[in-house]
Amino acid sequence: MTRARFGGVFVPVITPFTADLLPDTNAFVSHCRWMLDQGVDGLAIFGTTSEANSLTVTERKVLLEALLESGVPASKLMPGTGACSIIDAADLTAHAVSRGCGGVLMLPPFYYKAVDSDGLFASFAEVIERVADDRLHVYLYHIPPVAQVPIGLDLIERLVQRYPDTVVGLKDSSGDWENTRAVLEGFPGFATFAGSESFLLDTLRGGGAGCITASGNANPAGIRKVYSAWEGETGEADALQARISEIRSTLQGYPMIPALKAMTARFTGNETWALTRPPLTALSGSQVASLMSDLETIGFDIATNGDCVTA
Amino acid sequence: MTRARFGGVFVPVITPFTADLLPDTNAFVSHCRWMLDQGVDGLAIFGTTSEANSLTVTERKVLLEALLESGVPASKLMPGTGACSIIDAADLTAHAVSRGCGGVLMLPPFYYKAVDSDGLFASFAEVIERVADDRLHVYLYHIPPVAQVPIGLDLIERLVQRYPDTVVGLKDSSGDWENTRAVLEGFPGFATFAGSESFLLDTLRGGGAGCITASGNANPAGIRKVYSAWEGETGEADALQARISEIRSTLQGYPMIPALKAMTARFTGNETWALTRPPLTALSGSQVASLMSDLETIGFDIATNGDCVTA
Repeated sequence: MTRARFGGVFVPVITPFTADLLPDTNAFVSHCRWMLDQGVDGLAIFGTTSEANSLTVTERKVLLEALLESGVPASKLMPGTGACSIIDAADLTAHAVSRGCGGVLMLPPFYYKAVDSDGLFASFAEVIERVADDRLHVYLYHIPPVAQVPIGLDLIERLVQRYPDTVVGLKDSSGDWENTRAVLEGFPGFATFAGSESFLLDTLRGGGAGCITASGNANPAGIRKVYSAWEGETGEADALQARISEIRSTLQGYPMIPALKAMTARFTGNETWALTRPPLTALSGSQVASLMSDLETIGFDIATNGDCVTA
Repeated sequence: MTRARFGGVFVPVITPFTADLLPDTNAFVSHCRWMLDQGVDGLAIFGTTSEANSLTVTERKVLLEALLESGVPASKLMPGTGACSIIDAADLTAHAVSRGCGGVLMLPPFYYKAVDSDGLFASFAEVIERVADDRLHVYLYHIPPVAQVPIGLDLIERLVQRYPDTVVGLKDSSGDWENTRAVLEGFPGFATFAGSESFLLDTLRGGGAGCITASGNANPAGIRKVYSAWEGETGEADALQARISEIRSTLQGYPMIPALKAMTARFTGNETWALTRPPLTALSGSQVASLMSDLETIGFDIATNGDCVTA
């Protein structure tokens, strides 16, 4: 039996910290539930936006457990489980699979640079073989601007050939539409996600699965509307896409993760949401004021978080 | 009381794996003891050469414990304890300090790139404050070709000003002598180590502490001789430096970590020494043959590992 692959709008969830920089489980669970209530298709917890590599293995497991205990369906979760160590990656992946997560988003090991394709293939293969569970669905995580270790077309090809029922998709956070296009054309049927909602409609029209986007933390309903309009062929998709791209452009004037946390702090009234773990730094007071002013200029109401249904 | 700072020749120890890619504790302990017997001043276990970021936190702690149990003095150990997560870094650092290690070598968090100096300062500060132990000596680890997150002069300045008795040195693996020179000139009294023995004599003459070098895994006695000649003013230092630089140049024709492991496999007769954890790959048979031939050409006898006292 072929298990369902993910599709739609996924959000790499920002991770809240308490004043002493430990994960704030309650705020995390509330934020996740709120985004699902806004209609997003799933949550890519523990991505780059989540400061996941600034968390320990245990912290990630505890947050995942808390989310499941709160009633969030595991089938909607795509935790990031890649790590520099294949043992950590296998541990996190096995944990996610054992809890029923619908898939995992897997970074390559990212400490060594300019490693060859054989070494990267072996990294993913070791993790898959150690987990040894046919429920596992791996979404490869290509984010060369940050990881500095790309997942090229040749590597995708080798992994899909070797593990056709396991390696089922990719998130392309290269920011390079030509790369996304090449993946869409080269691997029809592969669940390819754009790493930004700016490419959502293009990705869907190219046969892709959707997007996994940081700014979904602030504007989940607005981004999901594009998917609905495309799916329902309502004729509104292009106009809605233009609107979410405008909001994205505004956010990109600031460091994205602290900006999303500042917006969430304002929206929820919980100021500790603004905290990041080092090496990331929170926005300064003047940056927050400037961001709020820019959002107002484009008519994005932070009090209701844009197009969201309920505050 | 001011505690001693490290000086001399330190080796970032290669980490042996068993056939199933788990750490081989016995081979690790034997190799460490052999290098100390060859006269090196200390062991920088868990560095880049050690594939430390391919190990889990627990694996590193277990290897350190095994080394101490074997009788290796903690005062000669400089474990790498930097990590992407400040919590992991604090955990590893506190463990090392609690066991009496003479210092730790600390990478910056290396997932996010282009982070600002405030964020990097906060990263080191959080680790130091969480460990909160005045026995701690931190050696900063500057290795921009791999970590892609540099430790600039401004950051050193801020850390030394804030933690003068804790942040006591640096390993410069930039490969850029101008940077090493700037650190030596800017921070007299700071224990600055070159990241390659090619710069050993220059570093010592510039007031630095010594070198921490991968190739010490293969040629510990030869490299230590340069230090002895410099210290004893025997007049032989330049000739000895030329010889170790020649050996280094030969090794640099190959991927350094697998090459050192292949040499150790040959030297010890233990073939699993050649294994690396992905994403690194072992040398191919033809690469090994070529390396052995190159070493023979320069008169480096693998059977005795160059200038080593005993096999």
